[in-house]
Amino acid sequence: VNVVISLDYGGTAIKEGIVSERGKLLCFGQTPTGSTKFSQVANKLAARIKALQELAKERKNNAVACAIGSPGLISYDRKIIYTSPNFESRGDFNLYKALRARKVNLPIFIENDANVAALGEYWKGAGKGARCLILLTLGTGIGGGVVVDGKLWLGAHGMGGELGHVTVDPRGAKCGCGNYGCLEALASATAVVREFKKAIKSGEESGLAVSSEIGAKEIAEAARKGDVLAKEIFSKSGTYLGIALASMINEFDPDVIVLGGGMSPAFDLLESSMTRELNRRAFSKMVEKVKVIPAKLGNKAGIYGAAFLAFQKLSEV
Amino acid sequence: VNVVISLDYGGTAIKEGIVSERGKLLCFGQTPTGSTKFSQVANKLAARIKALQELAKERKNNAVACAIGSPGLISYDRKIIYTSPNFESRGDFNLYKALRARKVNLPIFIENDANVAALGEYWKGAGKGARCLILLTLGTGIGGGVVVDGKLWLGAHGMGGELGHVTVDPRGAKCGCGNYGCLEALASATAVVREFKKAIKSGEESGLAVSSEIGAKEIAEAARKGDVLAKEIFSKSGTYLGIALASMINEFDPDVIVLGGGMSPAFDLLESSMTRELNRRAFSKMVEKVKVIPAKLGNKAGIYGAAFLAFQKLSEV
Repeated sequence: VNVVISLDYGGTAIKEGIVSERGKLLCFGQTPTGSTKFSQVANKLAARIKALQELAKERKNNAVACAIGSPGLISYDRKIIYTSPNFESRGDFNLYKALRARKVNLPIFIENDANVAALGEYWKGAGKGARCLILLTLGTGIGGGVVVDGKLWLGAHGMGGELGHVTVDPRGAKCGCGNYGCLEALASATAVVREFKKAIKSGEESGLAVSSEIGAKEIAEAARKGDVLAKEIFSKSGTYLGIALASMINEFDPDVIVLGGGMSPAFDLLESSMTRELNRRAFSKMVEKVKVIPAKLGNKAGIYGAAFLAFQKLSEV
Repeated sequence: VNVVISLDYGGTAIKEGIVSERGKLLCFGQTPTGSTKFSQVANKLAARIKALQELAKERKNNAVACAIGSPGLISYDRKIIYTSPNFESRGDFNLYKALRARKVNLPIFIENDANVAALGEYWKGAGKGARCLILLTLGTGIGGGVVVDGKLWLGAHGMGGELGHVTVDPRGAKCGCGNYGCLEALASATAVVREFKKAIKSGEESGLAVSSEIGAKEIAEAARKGDVLAKEIFSKSGTYLGIALASMINEFDPDVIVLGGGMSPAFDLLESSMTRELNRRAFSKMVEKVKVIPAKLGNKAGIYGAAFLAFQKLSEV
């Protein structure tokens, strides 16, 4: 069978898989990224691609392409990673060229990580068959992807869909992108932890002790056990999320909004305040037609989506 | 030559024209809408369509369709006007059926007024050849339209592109749509007048006397003559506009943003604060590639765009 070698890398891990044309994930693995230098990451990506090519060969699969989900803005020709706050690179990095230089001999497709996650959820996840799907990955940051009639929305220069960087509160916290009050700065896992720590520091009480290892997951657990402060923090994130989604509904008129990323298991803690804002702020004719649902594919969405993109591109040739 | 009978109606006026396939506006006129009742408006639209059909006939033009730009959300099948705050209609109004009942015998194409204005500016105005064009009509309200590769962005249910109803300040002024702090509530002509009057009431000084007839136009004139308060009010609108456009740039990655509507002649008064916010808030890689420019077709954009849409739809059959 025809397969795609699919990779999805971020600041922490490189996920990898082999995906068949019909959307079977034939194997899946994960390794630490291990470096914040693009050239080192390219070394590792190239090595993993070759290892998976070997594996595919052993299994008598026909690897037709490799596909890579990458953080950051990507150039129109889908070769250069422009900006990615997690990596040491002042300028731009030509990942395509770097992989070719490292003897990757398959067709290479590079796409933004949230974009491939959106395609994955469209192909095999929560948003199957959606006409207009919006995905947000709620994690350390907030990524976004838009799929229209099965294809990625890329805008005029290939950089569209940065939905984590819409301004929700013009006077809000500073964001990694330089803006103030971005959705990412107010509703990401990072924001949840920051707000929790700030509240404790200012004298609010919680059953959860603040330590350096505390993360959104621990705060979510505390909230589920009834911790009032933890619940409030998630409710506030849900409010910001709802404000942003209401605007996106009025702009995009989607039929499905999928919430993925590390925070998506906390969907239940975000939902009521989020829904309240949607109902207050978006046109009811659009709100009543959109489903807002948690993602289904977890950390494999990007692997599926990158493969889907590669098969789609190859079939267009 | 093949022509389209094109109409564009709002709370105040019905604009009308005959447009050729190559985009010549063969005649143009304007009549008061005269009623806030949909059935009355339908009477008038039907009468104007028939009159223009006659005129086209006299001139030996071949009228192939009529096209109508309408305020409000429009149903997926483009027949029913769902909501339009300027008209007395609690429920939905089937404009298509109403025109057929009034013996309009041409193919009928109905589209949101800001959407047809966006198509008009794409076809014959400021945004010729744009890959991804965003248009905002800055008037009494703020409408929006998105054109991608020459086609309207309609979303999953035909209602997308309501760009005037993105939340810019969650705690901002109430909007006609029910939300708080929409772009429309903060940066429309209505908002400019409201903020000016409020400032005068609270004791601020201006060379411009407040009267009931004062409009955004008079305030713009005062600003150009150096009136400090009037300048500040426009600068604030430009700030809100910039915040909203920065988010749209990050979401849509457009190559052209066109500002039309009654406020567009005040572009010079909005521009500096708007540009400041764009540069502060949107990804520089996208901002440096987008042109933000005033509309070119004035109050005729919708007439051109509705005709373009009709020709486009007929060629798809």
